Amino acid sequence: MSDSVYLHDVPLPEARKRFMQALQAAGLDGPLPAETVALDQALGRVTAEPAWARSSSPHYHAAAMDGYALRAAATLGANDRTPVELPAGTEAAYVDTGDALPDWADAVVPIEDVEPVGMGGRAAVQAIRLRAAVPPWSHVRALGEDMVVSELVLPAGHTLRPVDLGALAGSGHADVRVRRKPRVAILPTGSELVAPGSAPRPGEIVEYNSLVLAAQVHQWGGLAIRLAIVADDLARISAAVRGAMADGADLVLINAGSSAGSEDFSASVVRALGRVLVHGVAVRPGHPVILGMLHADDRRVPVIGVPGYPVSAALTGEIFIQPLLDRWLGRQPASPDEVDAVMTRKVHSSLGDDEYLRVTIGEVGSRRIAAPLARGAGVLTSLVRADGIVRIPAGSQGLEAGQSVRVTLYRSRAEIAQTIVALGSHDLTLDLLAQFLAGKGRRLASANVGSLGGLVALRRGEAHLAGSHLLDPETGEFNLSYIRQYLPETPVVVIGMVGREQGLIVAPGNPHHLTGLADLAHAAVTFVNRQRGAGTRLLLDYNLGLLGIDPASIRGYNREEYTHLAVAAAISSGRASCGLGIRAAAEALALGFVPLFQERYDLVIPREHYASPFLQPLLDLLGDAAFRQAVAALPGYSLEPMGKVIAG
Amino acid sequence: MSDSVYLHDVPLPEARKRFMQALQAAGLDGPLPAETVALDQALGRVTAEPAWARSSSPHYHAAAMDGYALRAAATLGANDRTPVELPAGTEAAYVDTGDALPDWADAVVPIEDVEPVGMGGRAAVQAIRLRAAVPPWSHVRALGEDMVVSELVLPAGHTLRPVDLGALAGSGHADVRVRRKPRVAILPTGSELVAPGSAPRPGEIVEYNSLVLAAQVHQWGGLAIRLAIVADDLARISAAVRGAMADGADLVLINAGSSAGSEDFSASVVRALGRVLVHGVAVRPGHPVILGMLHADDRRVPVIGVPGYPVSAALTGEIFIQPLLDRWLGRQPASPDEVDAVMTRKVHSSLGDDEYLRVTIGEVGSRRIAAPLARGAGVLTSLVRADGIVRIPAGSQGLEAGQSVRVTLYRSRAEIAQTIVALGSHDLTLDLLAQFLAGKGRRLASANVGSLGGLVALRRGEAHLAGSHLLDPETGEFNLSYIRQYLPETPVVVIGMVGREQGLIVAPGNPHHLTGLADLAHAAVTFVNRQRGAGTRLLLDYNLGLLGIDPASIRGYNREEYTHLAVAAAISSGRASCGLGIRAAAEALALGFVPLFQERYDLVIPREHYASPFLQPLLDLLGDAAFRQAVAALPGYSLEPMGKVIAG
Repeated sequence: MSDSVYLHDVPLPEARKRFMQALQAAGLDGPLPAETVALDQALGRVTAEPAWARSSSPHYHAAAMDGYALRAAATLGANDRTPVELPAGTEAAYVDTGDALPDWADAVVPIEDVEPVGMGGRAAVQAIRLRAAVPPWSHVRALGEDMVVSELVLPAGHTLRPVDLGALAGSGHADVRVRRKPRVAILPTGSELVAPGSAPRPGEIVEYNSLVLAAQVHQWGGLAIRLAIVADDLARISAAVRGAMADGADLVLINAGSSAGSEDFSASVVRALGRVLVHGVAVRPGHPVILGMLHADDRRVPVIGVPGYPVSAALTGEIFIQPLLDRWLGRQPASPDEVDAVMTRKVHSSLGDDEYLRVTIGEVGSRRIAAPLARGAGVLTSLVRADGIVRIPAGSQGLEAGQSVRVTLYRSRAEIAQTIVALGSHDLTLDLLAQFLAGKGRRLASANVGSLGGLVALRRGEAHLAGSHLLDPETGEFNLSYIRQYLPETPVVVIGMVGREQGLIVAPGNPHHLTGLADLAHAAVTFVNRQRGAGTRLLLDYNLGLLGIDPASIRGYNREEYTHLAVAAAISSGRASCGLGIRAAAEALALGFVPLFQERYDLVIPREHYASPFLQPLLDLLGDAAFRQAVAALPGYSLEPMGKVIAG
Repeated sequence: MSDSVYLHDVPLPEARKRFMQALQAAGLDGPLPAETVALDQALGRVTAEPAWARSSSPHYHAAAMDGYALRAAATLGANDRTPVELPAGTEAAYVDTGDALPDWADAVVPIEDVEPVGMGGRAAVQAIRLRAAVPPWSHVRALGEDMVVSELVLPAGHTLRPVDLGALAGSGHADVRVRRKPRVAILPTGSELVAPGSAPRPGEIVEYNSLVLAAQVHQWGGLAIRLAIVADDLARISAAVRGAMADGADLVLINAGSSAGSEDFSASVVRALGRVLVHGVAVRPGHPVILGMLHADDRRVPVIGVPGYPVSAALTGEIFIQPLLDRWLGRQPASPDEVDAVMTRKVHSSLGDDEYLRVTIGEVGSRRIAAPLARGAGVLTSLVRADGIVRIPAGSQGLEAGQSVRVTLYRSRAEIAQTIVALGSHDLTLDLLAQFLAGKGRRLASANVGSLGGLVALRRGEAHLAGSHLLDPETGEFNLSYIRQYLPETPVVVIGMVGREQGLIVAPGNPHHLTGLADLAHAAVTFVNRQRGAGTRLLLDYNLGLLGIDPASIRGYNREEYTHLAVAAAISSGRASCGLGIRAAAEALALGFVPLFQERYDLVIPREHYASPFLQPLLDLLGDAAFRQAVAALPGYSLEPMGKVIAG
């Protein structure tokens, strides 16, 4: 049984302090030793010493034009009426660009300003005639114009870019002193882990944290060494860690499986081979992190027990590993860009923890909004989709909707400025839109908040458009009456997107022989529902009303999922025997489908955005043959409404 | 003789259009073919296809806590007075975090909420007692919580980051389809070129453009192939280009030496092996670029003749090569951050050219200022030091001082926000300050505009501080009277920096036996002067006046250099026999030195900056033992004034 649940998490600053003190005590808090690398191997490396110019550049007075080198003083008084003639060879020497000036010359006159005296090619020129005086040092690249010997070319702690390599070579260097790359051994542990590409059984987990951690280490300037997966066995984990130390690792990462059991093995191994400094840090996600110091003879090697959940693992990289690598490389921490944005939703946060909240950012009209993404430590897609991170400090209970927050960006501002924000009902065609828009200088960020949620988001100015399929029971019409009700003061344009088949998603072969909603009340049937505010939920409730079926009679009516695919997944896994959803979701998971209704899915777009060139690439796609063909290939979809102006 | 001077440069948009049309005609304007790579080799590669989830993640219902899996319905009504007991095994199964739920279970109760019934370890637990009902699906990571099979994981054209690799592995992928890396052959040509690290003679040039271009190509996702230097010989260059085509190059770069002659060879080779599309583009720096298409049997290979000057070469990479690689990789061009800034100086630009002006950026008080860097195509340090680029479009004659400009950034805004801007007289100790500040979260950007120029910059609010050593002939005091005159309305603090020995920098051994300024009027002596407004120039003029020496009697008095090192370089190269400057500059170039004066070099700091924490790390350094030791090691320096408040 795990003892980890009884641990007290240490506040982040205290955890960092303990780790740093242990590094200092072991003499491991400074930069790693320097090594010499050839310039063609030095891109991205960090200088260990300042680089001073060993030679000047140019290292001689060089002609900056094709022409004649001469003494400027000899051309004094030259003009149209009294040209000056200089004999070739002794007083005027032909030079190509880049040639060294003769010792006696102090200027160059460009070839096009010269009248040659003498017939034939350049060799036959006997003298040159000039009709204007030439200022001293004109058209000369003077010695040291770029760099003078002994000048500082690059400081220490500088990450080398392409032009830096040129500057080093130009100032007399063939190689450069850089920090040795920190060696980071990454050990995945856990009996439940299997390698990527294998087909895992229930309870088995594909091991990919070591892939992510290795890529992070590489990106941050370290040398990642991925070790083989080791099962939950104290002796074998200890042996692997000792092996990594013997191989010269500067840092060992023990990545627990996502089970708390695995994590205990990490702590035990660190305890056996050294000292646990911190077990549990008050950060979310990521709190079960272990910081420790391993002892091997006279050597000390820091160790980090990285939590198993993928978001926790990746954030542990950013919070603990990246700063350590920066320190060892002797460079200032990267300073990612930050912007202010307005929270779209209230977010509760634990008072005791520093929380790292993933958000998408959009610029809607004159506002920059931050929409929180899924917060689970297991939801890696929240990091994939994140535009940035909001840190909610310990001592805060969360963020209010409308509150201004500081966001550390994962993408450039320019990318974010290209982002079309779609909130509302999700549809598979939005993924296709995202795919096609990527080639047209726009990015589509969509979040599924249900059709009604989308209209509310438009009212608050939080989205450029909303996908909606809200059936009005009174009129049988879609969306319009809801728009009048929810957006009374926002002029919008409603554009048809697709017609969709809605029906019962059932197990393959429809084992319960369901034919319609009337069958949902059968005792053997378990339903899975969509959340309140979803168009599909309204469609269900409307039709249950028509049929006089009491929702209370339906087992599972209160079990809500947020997407068509989540409903299909519930049925696929046997958690429910049916749910209402679109045909494409059923077919994606190879399930059965009982068609019941046709509905229309529209895009609701505030007039101010509809009229702006910003949305034009998206609107153009609705008439694009390749896009329409891709949508038509989805099962259960009709193109009939696509691009039609329904209202506005 | 070069014919290139007679070429008409093509405007940039027209050049791009011709190149693109030739690529289209050859079917080379689209992405390269896809290839499959293992996930651990895929960081930074660009997806060739959208990636859809092949499996759900998690792919089963997983316990999110250590505890007991159970049926939620069985816990209904449990409370303190009427606890519910569930027999272990059949109705309550112990699960570790990550374990699969038994088929019959739909919730997990955490271990700490359970009273075990039975003695001993977990195996001996006969039942669990609960005093609260457990909601269905609590503490369960439902199948598909992260990704549902068939969902879009990543779009095509996406550059893979560490977390993306995890998302691919987690959704059932072991490898990924990415674009083949474009192969770029880089051929340096020019008889004057020698490899880095060799000691070049006058007229020889160290070849490093291929180093810079290869690093750029690598950074932009291509595969760079650096070929050996080829002399200016049509047959040999042609052979090397044909060889590169035969080796499968997607793009050939022929990098001319910086001589116009070399460039002609590039054009001739392209003409011989294919077609010249553009020879000369109206961009500065970089205009002699050649765009062409090589023919090899049925194959077409684009070729770029890259100009020889290093700034031109690097900017040719950004303007022509990077967009082509993006196109071949099927991704959107990177969107670097841009900011607005105010020009500190007027800049003239050619009406016919698009000019790429390198600037340093600083945030001084509430203003963001852009100071132009050296504009020569040979001054690679201008790119090394640049914080960004201002494009002056064709049709504009330049920029006015005070004009707002758009700057494309080379550094992050956060880095720029950390930049202390020092304008004024340059001193070697500023390089040391820069070096020491780098470790303290500040960057020092200094530009040498002379002591008076620095005071003027402070008046305009363009710098945080100015280095100054202006002798007042009336009082013999430094700086204070000039500050009263030039900064009457700006409260400043004057902090002592160093005492410096000024004297005559002469050739080694002092061959002219110079002893003082009185010797400057000797016929055999050639002087090199500092620019007007420089403290050293004022020192000279003051002392010439005291001695009654007429400047007109000094040969070279009107030849001005902008730094001590440039003066020393002029003497080192024999261009002048002496100049006034500091001892450290003489010793850096192993020259002779005749000491004449002691002077004080101060830092002049507006009170608003002096009082701000932003400058504190710099002020702290003036009392830092390691910094003072480094300054003391410079010849001719006195630490006596360092850190003293002279005025304010």
